[in-house]
Amino acid sequence: MEIARKTKKLGQDDPRRIVHSLKVGLAITLVSLFYYFEPLYDGFGDSAMWAVLTVVLVFEFSVGATLGKGLNRMLATLVAACLGAGAHCLASLSGRKGEPILVATFVFIIAVITTFMRFFPKVKARYDYGMMIFILTFCLVSVSGYRDDQVLEMARDRFSTILIGCCASLIVCICIFPVWIGENLHNSVSANIGKLGNFLQAFGDEYFRVAEESNENNKSYLQGYRTVLTSKSSEETMANFARWEPGHGPFGYRHPWKMYLKVGNLTRDCAYKVEALNSYLNCKIQTPAEIRGKIQVPCKRVSLECSRALKEMASTFRKMVITRSAVMHIESSKKAAEELKSLLKTNLWEEADLLEIIPAASVASLLLEIIECIEKISEALNELGKAASFRKINATVLPELPDSIQHETVQQDSNTAMPVPHCVIIVSE
Amino acid sequence: MEIARKTKKLGQDDPRRIVHSLKVGLAITLVSLFYYFEPLYDGFGDSAMWAVLTVVLVFEFSVGATLGKGLNRMLATLVAACLGAGAHCLASLSGRKGEPILVATFVFIIAVITTFMRFFPKVKARYDYGMMIFILTFCLVSVSGYRDDQVLEMARDRFSTILIGCCASLIVCICIFPVWIGENLHNSVSANIGKLGNFLQAFGDEYFRVAEESNENNKSYLQGYRTVLTSKSSEETMANFARWEPGHGPFGYRHPWKMYLKVGNLTRDCAYKVEALNSYLNCKIQTPAEIRGKIQVPCKRVSLECSRALKEMASTFRKMVITRSAVMHIESSKKAAEELKSLLKTNLWEEADLLEIIPAASVASLLLEIIECIEKISEALNELGKAASFRKINATVLPELPDSIQHETVQQDSNTAMPVPHCVIIVSE
Repeated sequence: MEIARKTKKLGQDDPRRIVHSLKVGLAITLVSLFYYFEPLYDGFGDSAMWAVLTVVLVFEFSVGATLGKGLNRMLATLVAACLGAGAHCLASLSGRKGEPILVATFVFIIAVITTFMRFFPKVKARYDYGMMIFILTFCLVSVSGYRDDQVLEMARDRFSTILIGCCASLIVCICIFPVWIGENLHNSVSANIGKLGNFLQAFGDEYFRVAEESNENNKSYLQGYRTVLTSKSSEETMANFARWEPGHGPFGYRHPWKMYLKVGNLTRDCAYKVEALNSYLNCKIQTPAEIRGKIQVPCKRVSLECSRALKEMASTFRKMVITRSAVMHIESSKKAAEELKSLLKTNLWEEADLLEIIPAASVASLLLEIIECIEKISEALNELGKAASFRKINATVLPELPDSIQHETVQQDSNTAMPVPHCVIIVSE
Repeated sequence: MEIARKTKKLGQDDPRRIVHSLKVGLAITLVSLFYYFEPLYDGFGDSAMWAVLTVVLVFEFSVGATLGKGLNRMLATLVAACLGAGAHCLASLSGRKGEPILVATFVFIIAVITTFMRFFPKVKARYDYGMMIFILTFCLVSVSGYRDDQVLEMARDRFSTILIGCCASLIVCICIFPVWIGENLHNSVSANIGKLGNFLQAFGDEYFRVAEESNENNKSYLQGYRTVLTSKSSEETMANFARWEPGHGPFGYRHPWKMYLKVGNLTRDCAYKVEALNSYLNCKIQTPAEIRGKIQVPCKRVSLECSRALKEMASTFRKMVITRSAVMHIESSKKAAEELKSLLKTNLWEEADLLEIIPAASVASLLLEIIECIEKISEALNELGKAASFRKINATVLPELPDSIQHETVQQDSNTAMPVPHCVIIVSE
């Protein structure tokens, strides 16, 4: 029962998992047909089995990973098969007794060098699998040459069956509901920015709420950012695989995946500040509500504008457009920050105990720092947008309108579902 | 030249890498001898090659990873070979024409189910490789049954050659300079705690320094904590592999590796606070030096005592002993914290601008929070120490001695190389 429930949940969380399983089954079954049809089998003999094994080993969830493994495997097999055949020919010159010794020496040297090369960070990130297959094929071809005279045929058969296996995997992987890992990375980076936005949206209400009323929606918003803190390694893996992918949809072949890592790092830097903010929600020494009330308006304003800026950035980035709408929100958050600063400068809290003021003051100072973080993210996103030639949309903003008119004239993107009450955006192109 | 330099650096950074490369070469060469000796070859024929392939695929840097992969491969091969042979026998009942259809159906079903199972987080963490080998062997045995009547012999040969390959890998991996990943995890967790200690040791000096004098040593201390922030995934990988390892040295078979993850998480929580502290070192709005000076003494004291507690914890944890020495430092940091709090309560800074006070006040409040984090780490380490039955050392502390006597009577562990000037530790057992 427990397993059935978990299985159902796994499938519901991401239906692509079920599709992937079916795709693997299909690819393996297709390739195993080689073995059954007389004419196909006659060409390769028992080597046909390598095609089936290749599908099992190479077929991954995403196109990028499958392509990376497939190309690694093909290239490594090709080079190693040639080298292995060469090593066998060279060794066989030294006679039946000398051959094993020479081949064993070659195998040892190649294995040592290749294994060491796998420690280079760049090799490890992109060619680790290829290195392993290189040793494997080299051993296979050079060693079996001792018992089997047709080394060249064997090397050729091995390469061609692996080619068939890789091609079959790639065709099934790309043609039937492909999972592009580059798209996953794109969505994950934008989702992470959005999570920080959600936190800041909920934070203002939560920190300055008077009674014990709790908002379930806010709670989930306040927790969401935690996954951002530990997203580094998964982003790096995705970026490595994404670089293997051909152009697809809005992503060109040389899409600047590396710059996603920069945006990811800046997002994490911001998440660390958010983590610090979060700790003040459940702080033991809390600033009394009446003192907090004094900075409530500008703090809430900064938090809300930051949240809007982040969510706007997440949404426009996801849609791959460049607008100035996030910059507007950053500007208004800066204005609110100035208000907050001047409020802090006036000796508002003279009679109060400094120890009690500190939490609220720290919250205020963190909010000011978060604005800087958001500016950096915004710059990095702009750079990325330029490098990836995102579509530019000029949004002209008329921020001077009085509030009552503003609310009526707001033009809102129906997809974002975010209120942008403080400015009017007229999309001119 | 560049490559030669990098190679040299990789080898110098961790000489175990060179040893590992040599070990892989040795194991592959050893197993390939099977192919050369007539009597050994006669037993297995061409299947002997599987032993070589197994070594290439299974031999990993650490014992845990090699054992995990080896056991996965052996178990999966055994089960899949039996099932595959069974599938072949069942299918062959339906005649020459029906067999391919039935076998293809079996292969499809097994491939789909097994691929989906790889998505379960627990399966992915520990049995991912086994699942892949299971599909592979099942296909190999059931499909080749169509062309080869001796399916049972083939299944047996495949299993026994893989057994030989795995055993050879394990023997070489364990007997020649073994790399225990559990030990790596142990050292990495304790090093991370130590890095936070280093930061706090340098922080007090750096934050309250008057002139622009810079201390190179401090700089490296202040940077070290950054790797802690992103250590989660590597710790999880290590813990997963460590669970495969047999007892070795001070680590028993059922060593509580899972609890290392808890300690790691708490260390990261503390590292997030340290990250927040670090941002105040290069803050734009800085509290004037004369105001900072007012809280300098207790702040430096808290920072130093926290640093000592962390370093003491790291060092005793590394040596797998339980002492109360870290608790002493935590106590003194709490005392200093009380001083700091009462200093903050007095209206020391009445005439100053609140905006300028905030950074210093935030630093003070973060230091207070860090004490709580350290207490949590200390508790988690104690739990872990109990679960793993670390050696208990009773340290009796005589903190009342005057300073001059203290410095002479300090008994210091020569391995820790850390000054413990404020207490006298008499190790009684």
